[in-house]
Amino acid sequence: MQALYVADGRLSYRQGYPKPEPGPGEALVRVRLAGICATDLEIVKGYGGFKGVLGHEFVGQVEAATEEPSWVGKRVVGTINLGCWQCRVCLGEGPEHCPQRTVLGIIQKDGIFADYVTLPLVNLRPVPDEVPDEEAVFTEPLAAALRIREQLVVPPTARVAVVGPGRLGMLIGQVLALAGTRVTMLGRLPASLALPAQLGLETGLAGDMADDSFDFVVEATGNEAGLAHSLRLVRPLGTLVMKSTFAGAATMDLSKLVVGEITVVGSRCGPFEPALRLLAQGKIAVRRMIEAEYPLAEGTAALTHAARPGVRKVLLRP
Amino acid sequence: MQALYVADGRLSYRQGYPKPEPGPGEALVRVRLAGICATDLEIVKGYGGFKGVLGHEFVGQVEAATEEPSWVGKRVVGTINLGCWQCRVCLGEGPEHCPQRTVLGIIQKDGIFADYVTLPLVNLRPVPDEVPDEEAVFTEPLAAALRIREQLVVPPTARVAVVGPGRLGMLIGQVLALAGTRVTMLGRLPASLALPAQLGLETGLAGDMADDSFDFVVEATGNEAGLAHSLRLVRPLGTLVMKSTFAGAATMDLSKLVVGEITVVGSRCGPFEPALRLLAQGKIAVRRMIEAEYPLAEGTAALTHAARPGVRKVLLRP
Repeated sequence: MQALYVADGRLSYRQGYPKPEPGPGEALVRVRLAGICATDLEIVKGYGGFKGVLGHEFVGQVEAATEEPSWVGKRVVGTINLGCWQCRVCLGEGPEHCPQRTVLGIIQKDGIFADYVTLPLVNLRPVPDEVPDEEAVFTEPLAAALRIREQLVVPPTARVAVVGPGRLGMLIGQVLALAGTRVTMLGRLPASLALPAQLGLETGLAGDMADDSFDFVVEATGNEAGLAHSLRLVRPLGTLVMKSTFAGAATMDLSKLVVGEITVVGSRCGPFEPALRLLAQGKIAVRRMIEAEYPLAEGTAALTHAARPGVRKVLLRP
Repeated sequence: MQALYVADGRLSYRQGYPKPEPGPGEALVRVRLAGICATDLEIVKGYGGFKGVLGHEFVGQVEAATEEPSWVGKRVVGTINLGCWQCRVCLGEGPEHCPQRTVLGIIQKDGIFADYVTLPLVNLRPVPDEVPDEEAVFTEPLAAALRIREQLVVPPTARVAVVGPGRLGMLIGQVLALAGTRVTMLGRLPASLALPAQLGLETGLAGDMADDSFDFVVEATGNEAGLAHSLRLVRPLGTLVMKSTFAGAATMDLSKLVVGEITVVGSRCGPFEPALRLLAQGKIAVRRMIEAEYPLAEGTAALTHAARPGVRKVLLRP
């Protein structure tokens, strides 16, 4: 089959890559449509030392599921953490923090920039008929945005900012605005704020905002400058949510963190079911976030495109 | 009067420093005994650009309080944040985060390494008779340790570590152990662990501990190496409490913070009343934490002593 393979920070398109064989409890899924995310771009730069097929945002169709044949033919999305389901972490909090976990296209598990992928049935979620592929492919990042609502009470009266009006930032902004909260999307350049404004979110330039202006700030840039703004903008006793993958260490103003008694919360993968419900209800605008679609064979060009500043979601179709 | 004065990172002992005049709502307090804290040492190195009389940990005696003469003669400790008591922050959360606040010996308010200090009556707390000066002088740092219990639920079953078995670290360890929690004090050198062990706390070398060993880790070293250990030792979904003043920016492994969904909580000043109750009840061993006492005239030597590694509480007596 065809696949986009990454090793030692080098991405290559391969034909004749071995089609995966489902193990016990697993399904074989044909990938229908895939999305490129900032983590994919970090991995291509060497983050995490991953070797294998890249990609983890997808919608697919089950082709084989020996143990539960009722899955065959179903359109599905898939959660990305594969736990051991034996340890206290898996049985308690779930597989997202299992020390033995593999992660689709990120840690020791071939991802979905390919014709086929295998996944445990426990990771699959059926996609409602009313959610087309072009929207279902946003389930994973939308779930990641919803993770914030699992972790924190965000009062509808809170002053909330999202620093980084990109692909993930716009999903976060929409999710946090759902309950009537006033959410301001902050960027570096006016051009980056046009789409967030069309989506009905408030917008502003990060540099124009006064210190301590927000109760909650979500860092969604993944770079040190964005982090510095985020910490500057959160008020004493406020909360800073770290939503972007940082490829290692970064510098932070710990004096403000301590003196201002800021709470910083790391935030990663979230729940798929409410994400699918929101897509089915049409409550999150995702189609307008699509920048381009490439065939998988042009995957390296697609990733180059996705890495350009201000670019929205780039999709890959096997 | 005599005073220890700091300006531009230089500390000097002065005689003939003007005796302060209490303003409206203020008391004149004679300082009986004072403690040197890590923040004082940072200020002498230039932290925060403070100019004035240094020092904020003290026990004293009220000499004048025109508006409420019943205070005169009382032995008191004093909270260190002087708010405007007009703004929403003061009226809601208290003066600790008032944007207009001054802070005793730290921000635009002469501190207590002197014969006399003035403080608003609202900042004073009477010291119970059964708490001698040598224990009452620990009220402010003990309150800071208790702040963690205001901010976080620390379940008695949690695995808790305090990185940095110094002056503040030992108070934090004792406070967190009060409810039956198992608390491990972690240091770099075996010598630093002798006193914590005598105080009944578990001890260990930070470098010997496996990654992700603790549910809660309190960073009490104020240096980057201690911070790196703290973040390494906290488990995914765990909490890292930042309890030390960092003089500016420091580098942190943000990848672990995000992927492990760690919560980082800055923590500063705490409640005096429960601190005084604990001291009156004899529940916190503080006397054994006293390293030395100097007359105020030898203040610069006292601060040099307090800055040596592994040194416990150094006191100053005017």
